[in-house]
Amino acid sequence: MSDLIQKLQWRYATKKMDTTKVVPQEKVDRILEAVRLTATSSGLQPYEVIVVTNQDVREKIRQIAWNQAQITEGSHLLVFAAWDDYTVERINTMFDYVNTERGVKNEGWENYRQMLLNTYPQRGAEVNYQHAARQAYVALGTALIAAAEEQVDSTPMEGFDPQALDDILGLPARGLRSVAIMPLGYRADEGDWLVNLKKVRRAREDFVSEVN
Amino acid sequence: MSDLIQKLQWRYATKKMDTTKVVPQEKVDRILEAVRLTATSSGLQPYEVIVVTNQDVREKIRQIAWNQAQITEGSHLLVFAAWDDYTVERINTMFDYVNTERGVKNEGWENYRQMLLNTYPQRGAEVNYQHAARQAYVALGTALIAAAEEQVDSTPMEGFDPQALDDILGLPARGLRSVAIMPLGYRADEGDWLVNLKKVRRAREDFVSEVN
Repeated sequence: MSDLIQKLQWRYATKKMDTTKVVPQEKVDRILEAVRLTATSSGLQPYEVIVVTNQDVREKIRQIAWNQAQITEGSHLLVFAAWDDYTVERINTMFDYVNTERGVKNEGWENYRQMLLNTYPQRGAEVNYQHAARQAYVALGTALIAAAEEQVDSTPMEGFDPQALDDILGLPARGLRSVAIMPLGYRADEGDWLVNLKKVRRAREDFVSEVN
Repeated sequence: MSDLIQKLQWRYATKKMDTTKVVPQEKVDRILEAVRLTATSSGLQPYEVIVVTNQDVREKIRQIAWNQAQITEGSHLLVFAAWDDYTVERINTMFDYVNTERGVKNEGWENYRQMLLNTYPQRGAEVNYQHAARQAYVALGTALIAAAEEQVDSTPMEGFDPQALDDILGLPARGLRSVAIMPLGYRADEGDWLVNLKKVRRAREDFVSEVN
């Protein structure tokens, strides 16, 4: 069994977290670094991560998120917020930054920039937001592995009112829309209905097929 | 530096693969197992993975995917295909399977089933497909880490005609729609324009913010 498979077996969507435990900052930092490094379409990284520790703000978020207790029981709440659009400015900013960091202007790369500039902004904000949101799910998949590597518990969550969350965090003014949230913390010793239930996945033959 | 961060530093979207090398089956199996184990919304696993090794089929796919060479240069092509809808039958099949595997009928779990049955099928196929497709991106994020752990190169790709791919693989009859593809293989010794360029990501301060 690989390390990764062991981590994926260990993790589960923690239902009750221990309010007395705080995830150490260096663990949070490594989880965020893994997210920062993961892949995104065209390397645009079309989302940001907001780390909420403030208890009052997390109480407000809990109220617009089906009262899910892990939001305040954990010590950190990660909010994945995608760009509300791919604009000419955002695309150019990222391509210019890549050129600066690499110290070279690659012709293929510049042609690729033009292709994006000629297609993305014209598709409209909603199509672009949906595409950016999908990239945030790559980050979500990465974050849950990164948390497991640190033996930190987490719960990926979609169950919240995204517009209310956007308002709480002031995201519209930043051109962002919330996509998913993930509390980080440690499982409580008692009271988690899921922790002792078997992790169930479809059998491989019902999930994977081959064209040989 | 954590193992995961090292893996994410090592990987890149491989642009030219070595046609003489084949990824061993046990490595492919571990990559698929990681994908099978990763998280999905409500545990529904609303997608499948099709592993294409057939060279003729991969040639056809390459033709509707901007002629991206890795599709045929690699040894395996993973196709992530999401459910075209959340139907009553699909939801019940998964909840029944979970009950059978766990050997218990949990009341909270049954209430949760009813909540999904009362909301998902009514939302319409397109909304449901988009939600399922997002879950496949968690799988994509998992697969690229799993490949890196095996020191297998990969390239996540969105650049293809999804309807043409669906037709090539006969997905409509299976209630599936293609979302993303990922060739697996080994980087070529020469001719990859990206391999020696610096991996660029936005600085942490431009990517992560805190609400303390």
